[in-house]
Amino acid sequence: MTAANPVTLPLSGYEARHFLLAVDGPVAAVTLNRPDRKNPLTFESYRELTDLFWALQRDDAVKAVVITGAGGNFSSGGDVFEIIGPLVAMDTKGLTAFTRMTGELVKAMRACPQPVIAAVDGICAGAGAIIAMASDMRLATPRAKVGFLFNKVGLAGCDMGACAILPRLIGQGRASELLYTGRFMTAEEGAAWGFFNRLAEDALAQAHALAADIARGPTYANTMTKRMLAMEWAMSVEEAIEAEAVAQALCMTTEDFARAYRAFAAKEKPVFEGN
Amino acid sequence: MTAANPVTLPLSGYEARHFLLAVDGPVAAVTLNRPDRKNPLTFESYRELTDLFWALQRDDAVKAVVITGAGGNFSSGGDVFEIIGPLVAMDTKGLTAFTRMTGELVKAMRACPQPVIAAVDGICAGAGAIIAMASDMRLATPRAKVGFLFNKVGLAGCDMGACAILPRLIGQGRASELLYTGRFMTAEEGAAWGFFNRLAEDALAQAHALAADIARGPTYANTMTKRMLAMEWAMSVEEAIEAEAVAQALCMTTEDFARAYRAFAAKEKPVFEGN
Amino acid sequence: MTAANPVTLPLSGYEARHFLLAVDGPVAAVTLNRPDRKNPLTFESYRELTDLFWALQRDDAVKAVVITGAGGNFSSGGDVFEIIGPLVAMDTKGLTAFTRMTGELVKAMRACPQPVIAAVDGICAGAGAIIAMASDMRLATPRAKVGFLFNKVGLAGCDMGACAILPRLIGQGRASELLYTGRFMTAEEGAAWGFFNRLAEDALAQAHALAADIARGPTYANTMTKRMLAMEWAMSVEEAIEAEAVAQALCMTTEDFARAYRAFAAKEKPVFEGN
Repeated sequence: MTAANPVTLPLSGYEARHFLLAVDGPVAAVTLNRPDRKNPLTFESYRELTDLFWALQRDDAVKAVVITGAGGNFSSGGDVFEIIGPLVAMDTKGLTAFTRMTGELVKAMRACPQPVIAAVDGICAGAGAIIAMASDMRLATPRAKVGFLFNKVGLAGCDMGACAILPRLIGQGRASELLYTGRFMTAEEGAAWGFFNRLAEDALAQAHALAADIARGPTYANTMTKRMLAMEWAMSVEEAIEAEAVAQALCMTTEDFARAYRAFAAKEKPVFEGN
Repeated sequence: MTAANPVTLPLSGYEARHFLLAVDGPVAAVTLNRPDRKNPLTFESYRELTDLFWALQRDDAVKAVVITGAGGNFSSGGDVFEIIGPLVAMDTKGLTAFTRMTGELVKAMRACPQPVIAAVDGICAGAGAIIAMASDMRLATPRAKVGFLFNKVGLAGCDMGACAILPRLIGQGRASELLYTGRFMTAEEGAAWGFFNRLAEDALAQAHALAADIARGPTYANTMTKRMLAMEWAMSVEEAIEAEAVAQALCMTTEDFARAYRAFAAKEKPVFEGN
Repeated sequence: MTAANPVTLPLSGYEARHFLLAVDGPVAAVTLNRPDRKNPLTFESYRELTDLFWALQRDDAVKAVVITGAGGNFSSGGDVFEIIGPLVAMDTKGLTAFTRMTGELVKAMRACPQPVIAAVDGICAGAGAIIAMASDMRLATPRAKVGFLFNKVGLAGCDMGACAILPRLIGQGRASELLYTGRFMTAEEGAAWGFFNRLAEDALAQAHALAADIARGPTYANTMTKRMLAMEWAMSVEEAIEAEAVAQALCMTTEDFARAYRAFAAKEKPVFEGN
């Protein structure tokens, strides 16, 4: 599709072209940053976001990610003129390359070992709603509005994994309504239904506090939690129990486990180092 | 089991024998209609309902379905004397033919490309609860009471897919309680838990409004949404993303997608034609 | 790991060593009983609990199980000094044997044919939270606090099936937060999210009433409900419908089904015998 310059490591020294990237210690913050247009996605920003999330697999200094939008909105999704227009004129091979590329963003978000926290304010629509959905946790302001708008632009609700992931967040019946109608889910609905973990006026600050808290935790073990939440999606419970027995035994060989024990024995708070 | 006369196409000209069928433009309305008995199901109505939902695959004029009950109740489920009595006397082969036939109704509801909206008032019990559960969306009046009563008649909660579908609508713990006890779920519980999409005194009118809204949408894309919500049920997320990339690329080749783009460019509301 | 004396049948005559076991007619009550330490688990109590749940497969007199903790708390989970200390010093093979053993408890709880009802008061943490999660239903007092604390002791959230089961109870987003942070879920959150079936000051008494109610039901059919809820976890809906057609046809050959029919015909309440 489009070849952005590759994302370079370490991420703390990388200057993103199509969004803001700020690495502050163990927390990387991604800000979609075209506030005059409500932070739409373009072919280039899709590609660079995907490359960033793939690169996160190789930057061990980053332990958690916050993703948000500038200027009071999360993201309006794929830009009408920069994405939808070209797609309408594209051939089958090109269309498939595009949908594969957007799907790859969700795969990259789920494959990176760091928990990803979305901080949502204002409009969160189309591919923007997908990015929030594909994050591991979601905080929002009371003004957040989340719309899986695909239906409104003549498309199906099955975009970038929505028919698989959204029902697991809010239930199959609610997801069906949102995907068939394209209507906005209010912040209150999102919190009541489990899409948002909580609502707060300072959702972005709270997302950073949560990310910092997670980054102070046993980060090797956190990566295993993320891996297993993904791997067990379609396993039987018996298979999941076996997989967890192996994964948790591995975590028990880490020094962080011993650190926690020694701290409890000494009535102190454990200081984890992620190994 | 029982061979009803086959359902004939187009459905707008078909006269149903065991329920009311009214096709009004793109919306087919099914009304269970033995209000003096709270609209129970019989061998014949099961068979004809199943045949109707299979036939919907071949009637392209119908774009959405509303299913409801007459006289203030949805359905009391399998009739005690017309269904349970004969079953008690039936041999193993006959019993299996019956449970396969009832399961086939759920399969047919899920296989038809049209979204199915249940409008629930009053009693919605047994196989009636299953029909509501197997619909794509559910609206209800505050008087709706939904009971998976199988336990009360000496049977298991695993009827027509309930142990698979109900947990995905309301969560595994709540579904377990309803299936082990057979107790009624109130309308308020149903709305809070995600079984009902919303409660309204005029649930049937709102179901028709929702059906008409969906029928005005990109109906080819809607059929893809329904197909993928079903197909991705037990897929891994990675498989689901791949499947959606293909399905959505296909939807991007439809004229409805171009119509939406042209309408947005012209600051008009898109008029979809379902192709 | 540790070999407890085998659990002997019938369970009504078995004296448990590491918890209280009281069999009252068809209901077996398990009480974790080291209230001064908030009922922690030890290697021995894990093993004996697991053996008990395996033994329940062979005690046909027991039709439902209640599990609770003594003295105002459910369980504080794996004991810091009796479990975590030894694990820190253990080799890989020993660690894997331990995680397999704890996972086996969840498998045994799910494999036993009797519905298991957890009655939760106070602290319900770590492996204690897992035991509540792995039960079929959960009642709690308003003082219940449930913490999947693994993260706090340097471990991953993937313990004994948590990454598979918890998301199906409360949704993927809420489960993720609890597993990444180890924070406590309040009783109110647990009820709103579907972890608890309801809150009540007398949760234990209500759990016994629910168990007795279930034990008066068609208990053969109940075992089939439990089996199918487990088996259909990762099946497609179509496979689930087929599996239920067979399972329900089998239940229709039981005398309890005929008893229900005869009682309805006589306008009486059915008396089930579990066969």
